[in-house]
Amino acid sequence: GFHYIGFLYFKMKITQLKKTFYRSILFFLIFFNTAHSQKNLRVNKVRLDNNLKKLSTFGMNEKGGNDRVAFSDFDIQAREYISSYLNNLGVSTYTDAAGNLIAKRMGKKKKAKPIAFGSHIDAVPNGGHYDGDVGVIGGIEVLETLVENNIITNHPLELIIFSNEEGAIFGSRAIAGKIDQATLDVKTASGYTNGEGVRRIGGDPDKILQVKRTSDDLHAFLELHIEQGNILNKKGLDIGIVEGIVGLKWWDVEITGFTNHAGTTPMNDRKDAMIAASKFVLAVNEIVTSIEGAQVGTVGRIKAFPGAPNVIPGKVITSLELRDLDGGKIKRIFEQIEERAHQIGVDTKTKFNFTPIDATAEPALTDIRIQKLIEENAKKLGYSFMTMPSGAGHDAQDMAVITPTGMIFIPSIDGISHSPEEFSSPEAIEKGVNILLHSILGLDRTKF
Amino acid sequence: GFHYIGFLYFKMKITQLKKTFYRSILFFLIFFNTAHSQKNLRVNKVRLDNNLKKLSTFGMNEKGGNDRVAFSDFDIQAREYISSYLNNLGVSTYTDAAGNLIAKRMGKKKKAKPIAFGSHIDAVPNGGHYDGDVGVIGGIEVLETLVENNIITNHPLELIIFSNEEGAIFGSRAIAGKIDQATLDVKTASGYTNGEGVRRIGGDPDKILQVKRTSDDLHAFLELHIEQGNILNKKGLDIGIVEGIVGLKWWDVEITGFTNHAGTTPMNDRKDAMIAASKFVLAVNEIVTSIEGAQVGTVGRIKAFPGAPNVIPGKVITSLELRDLDGGKIKRIFEQIEERAHQIGVDTKTKFNFTPIDATAEPALTDIRIQKLIEENAKKLGYSFMTMPSGAGHDAQDMAVITPTGMIFIPSIDGISHSPEEFSSPEAIEKGVNILLHSILGLDRTKF
Repeated sequence: GFHYIGFLYFKMKITQLKKTFYRSILFFLIFFNTAHSQKNLRVNKVRLDNNLKKLSTFGMNEKGGNDRVAFSDFDIQAREYISSYLNNLGVSTYTDAAGNLIAKRMGKKKKAKPIAFGSHIDAVPNGGHYDGDVGVIGGIEVLETLVENNIITNHPLELIIFSNEEGAIFGSRAIAGKIDQATLDVKTASGYTNGEGVRRIGGDPDKILQVKRTSDDLHAFLELHIEQGNILNKKGLDIGIVEGIVGLKWWDVEITGFTNHAGTTPMNDRKDAMIAASKFVLAVNEIVTSIEGAQVGTVGRIKAFPGAPNVIPGKVITSLELRDLDGGKIKRIFEQIEERAHQIGVDTKTKFNFTPIDATAEPALTDIRIQKLIEENAKKLGYSFMTMPSGAGHDAQDMAVITPTGMIFIPSIDGISHSPEEFSSPEAIEKGVNILLHSILGLDRTKF
Repeated sequence: GFHYIGFLYFKMKITQLKKTFYRSILFFLIFFNTAHSQKNLRVNKVRLDNNLKKLSTFGMNEKGGNDRVAFSDFDIQAREYISSYLNNLGVSTYTDAAGNLIAKRMGKKKKAKPIAFGSHIDAVPNGGHYDGDVGVIGGIEVLETLVENNIITNHPLELIIFSNEEGAIFGSRAIAGKIDQATLDVKTASGYTNGEGVRRIGGDPDKILQVKRTSDDLHAFLELHIEQGNILNKKGLDIGIVEGIVGLKWWDVEITGFTNHAGTTPMNDRKDAMIAASKFVLAVNEIVTSIEGAQVGTVGRIKAFPGAPNVIPGKVITSLELRDLDGGKIKRIFEQIEERAHQIGVDTKTKFNFTPIDATAEPALTDIRIQKLIEENAKKLGYSFMTMPSGAGHDAQDMAVITPTGMIFIPSIDGISHSPEEFSSPEAIEKGVNILLHSILGLDRTKF
């Protein structure tokens, strides 16, 4: 009786051991195979290029430029095309109340927070075919690569095509909870207000607040984008690891002198606001370049009053923009400029007045762990890289407020952007999308 | 018989002698009286001031400014008022084909060439009540003073109220034979073209060429005008003896850099047309002030492209105006500026292009003999004076081409002009009109 029971127990134990052994082998094989195949996983350059070209047909104008401004018919058609492409891959899509088109792919762990990535497909009028598009088509390529390799991540994946990035960084700001009625009422390049436009692309401006997410809703966010500058291209590097999106501040600068007859007023009896403005423009340049760092300062707008060749301008209104990753540095530079402007005013018998204007953005730092992850992947894939700030604004800057965020740059030829001449090579794009893919897979293994 | 004849002869002789004697006494008395009364002749300050105030009511706006732009209803009404005022003095008036209102008073010598004097009554929109008006009302006061003192000059006198001085120096240019069809077609501040406007005020644009005069038609021309600058006022002087009206040249200055993203383009990788423009503005000022003399150089107009605070301007178009009495000096200064602009272009990686534009006027020198005459009269009347160029354009500049011309300035308070704040005191105006009167009388005794 006992021996039989003992035998049965032993037999059962053997079976269990066998099972465990075979299971272990199987698990190991699967794991090794997966790890190996994931390490060698690469996106499809030809498909990527074809998909980018296909997207560019929505809104391509006679000059070869991109007129797919947010909320335009081109925007709507491109979104429909992307949705059906993703649905054909077996990835479901929906449009949130802010008009963000979101593709969702389930992960193994049902309760894990989604890893989000994406960019935008709207363009400035007569823009290029890479700004935004690369990140969206790259995100689709990541999903397609995972689908065709039967790779299911632990975390759910979300590809987000943000609404109206160029006009208002609208969709990402909605997710960050920053859209108010005033923004909804702003007229966009399409002719529609943000509110009307969002409705056109399937959103619901009345429910805009429901779009807001917090750190509880996302594991991380990644954006792949063209640099739009000439740094990577000039240095011949493959990948820019974005350390943050610079903050920016704008001022209206009003310089008051005295309007007078250009013929009857001797040179030494003038209060010429144009002279003062010229000294100011050069002072901004001098102060900004006199300090170590990547900060930039620009005077891009100017108007002289009354603005006739034969009248000494009594007033000049110009703009000042300062950008840096460090908000404190922006403040310190501005104080120096303000002080110098005061001195120029004394020297030229004019008066300077600075008024801060709307377009203010706080610097948005990316997550240092994600920077490291991107760097490791670049090394693993043999791509050259550098860490750099983003001088331009991106959806990532608002996502960075709610979740650990990373951003990947690829070179723009000659730094040209917002122009039909905007270009990045298929090879450069392929490298960027490979980094995006491996960074997503890395994030999938990372606990924050 | 002989004795009787001898007696008769003697008697006749006595009668003749008596006659001659009495005639001589009479002539001497008249001459002495005339010379004495002419020397002490003064215009009527109160009447002058009242007449100026009356003229200012035609087109006075709510801001106290003068909206009597050329060819406006105000212009027409003021001309009618002036005509009837002159007619009441017994001076006949007519309007020539160019719309110049001309008052003519006969002289003793029927064949003598007329002495002309005058200015304009049209204003810039929201202009002042002294620019032009002082010379016209001053001219009327001269005629009224002569009429009430029964003084008939040898030469005929012509008071000319020139048409559309502010818009095109139209009437005087017509007299100089410089009006073409293009000028007739130019739209003026009134909304009417010069051609339409001239017809409105009683001229005939089809006969514009008939208005042309030569040196055979005029003895001399005099213009009394406010300085429109701050030189006399600052120095506390009564009279400016204008040595000439400066020539002026205008250029469009196009500066080409490279439009780029203000956020993504490092400071050392920019081709910023605004920086180049600022250096240019300061270079103009520096070059113009580095040379001895009264020349002026002005940059009054500027436009940056695309003109947004966040875009580095790839293009700036600005204006350059140079004025001087010496055309050769204008040329030399421009060559220096052009050379410096080229250097700025090299330094800032931009390109400068200068295009001469329409508003070009050759320097117009006044007659040195008339300058002397004005100076003598100023000394005689005990007024302080200086010789100076006119930095502003005037009808006198075109009259100077066809006849010996003189110009008299009186101080403008604070040098303000083309503004409702334009002001010259009744005392200053009185002095100017006294100089005008005595210069006309002096010209009447002068042979050229």
